[in-house]
Amino acid sequence: MISKAQIKYIQSLQHKKYRQKFGQFVAEGDKIVQELLQGTYGVKAVYATKTWLEAQAPMIQRSIEVLEVDEAVLKQLSSLSTPNQAVALVDIPPAPQPLLQGHITLALEAIRDPGNMGTIIRIADWFGVRQIICTPDCVDAYNAKTIQATMGSIMRVPVIETDLVALLKTPGQVASYAATLHGNNIANTKKLQEGIILIGNESRGLSEEVIALSTHQITIPRIGQAESLNAAVATGIICGRLLI
Amino acid sequence: MISKAQIKYIQSLQHKKYRQKFGQFVAEGDKIVQELLQGTYGVKAVYATKTWLEAQAPMIQRSIEVLEVDEAVLKQLSSLSTPNQAVALVDIPPAPQPLLQGHITLALEAIRDPGNMGTIIRIADWFGVRQIICTPDCVDAYNAKTIQATMGSIMRVPVIETDLVALLKTPGQVASYAATLHGNNIANTKKLQEGIILIGNESRGLSEEVIALSTHQITIPRIGQAESLNAAVATGIICGRLLI
Repeated sequence: MISKAQIKYIQSLQHKKYRQKFGQFVAEGDKIVQELLQGTYGVKAVYATKTWLEAQAPMIQRSIEVLEVDEAVLKQLSSLSTPNQAVALVDIPPAPQPLLQGHITLALEAIRDPGNMGTIIRIADWFGVRQIICTPDCVDAYNAKTIQATMGSIMRVPVIETDLVALLKTPGQVASYAATLHGNNIANTKKLQEGIILIGNESRGLSEEVIALSTHQITIPRIGQAESLNAAVATGIICGRLLI
Repeated sequence: MISKAQIKYIQSLQHKKYRQKFGQFVAEGDKIVQELLQGTYGVKAVYATKTWLEAQAPMIQRSIEVLEVDEAVLKQLSSLSTPNQAVALVDIPPAPQPLLQGHITLALEAIRDPGNMGTIIRIADWFGVRQIICTPDCVDAYNAKTIQATMGSIMRVPVIETDLVALLKTPGQVASYAATLHGNNIANTKKLQEGIILIGNESRGLSEEVIALSTHQITIPRIGQAESLNAAVATGIICGRLLI
């Protein structure tokens, strides 16, 4: 049986502060837990309904703690409103050093919406982007909503918290492409083999400092009248122009 | 003062059935209500806090009923979880006939998520697409969540419920481009001047019948490993390739 202390511990991981302190996060939902069990992430424990465990038992390694819980307990463990069959306790993998030379990197400044963050990680995974850099004021990639929105891509694309300004100031840095409102039309930009694509906050866009440090400014031309595009959609459109 | 009957009527408009019966919808939130008051949509009534009404009074025409309500009442009127300062009761405009010749049309089959639907309407507005066609099993465009996600674009892009199969079967129809997993790479598709871009359901994609009736099949090439892309993101990427 699950103890009150375990429930309390898992609930504490809804907060970034405790995720960082203990180096673990909680993944919620049937599909993502299944994917995690098949991947190389360090799953420490699975809390799931009897039905779910019976069906998934062959996939669960012996080293993983397995606890059968009822739906009322799952509700307590969960931070999402959709009902779950399974929740996993997972080690946060160590963040690698960003490898900029010869690679495409997505760099995010102050992305605040967990859904956008997750969708951007999924887009990166689709277009083969191997790393995302984010400023410390971005929403945490191990937030439950973000994890859910990545649809499993969190396991393949590391999100590395970095001082973006310092990184762009590094001498000999690779080219960088800032998404702005008054740059070059992305339809006239060639396919990239290397470089940093810079995406800014949902309402303010990129900071002036980051734009000034970028080597190129790019823009999705507006033909109609919408005031703006969603940050994740804009990221998708830019990747669809620069990476394929 | 707002009557119980008015509250009940507005709450009934959370359901598509009653929106269709009465030909009205409810827009929630400061920004969208302001935009509606500046546009050409038929706003019938505004229910808002004292502070909001004082600030916006010069924008509100005399023909519009204005009722000051407190935040507790606004909460009753609202179907969204975010607290609002204002709610508007608006006439649903008559759907125009789709004009396919010489135009770009976005056609949606079984889009179920209100956020995706709203985001797609916003994308259409950004790229100057003047009309969206949707199958009857799409989520209603006048759903409160959809309205919110359009960020005002609902006023500029009509969403026309249509029998898509019958439309595609019409002799002499314009070219149509079905988003599928095994079509031509969108990076090799020319900019369109006319045609129907077909987008399918979030998990199933387009139906075989619609794909068979389309004149072209197009694909966003996958370089990495993500299983799929979000439907709104995919729409953005395709528009970013075919319309600019």
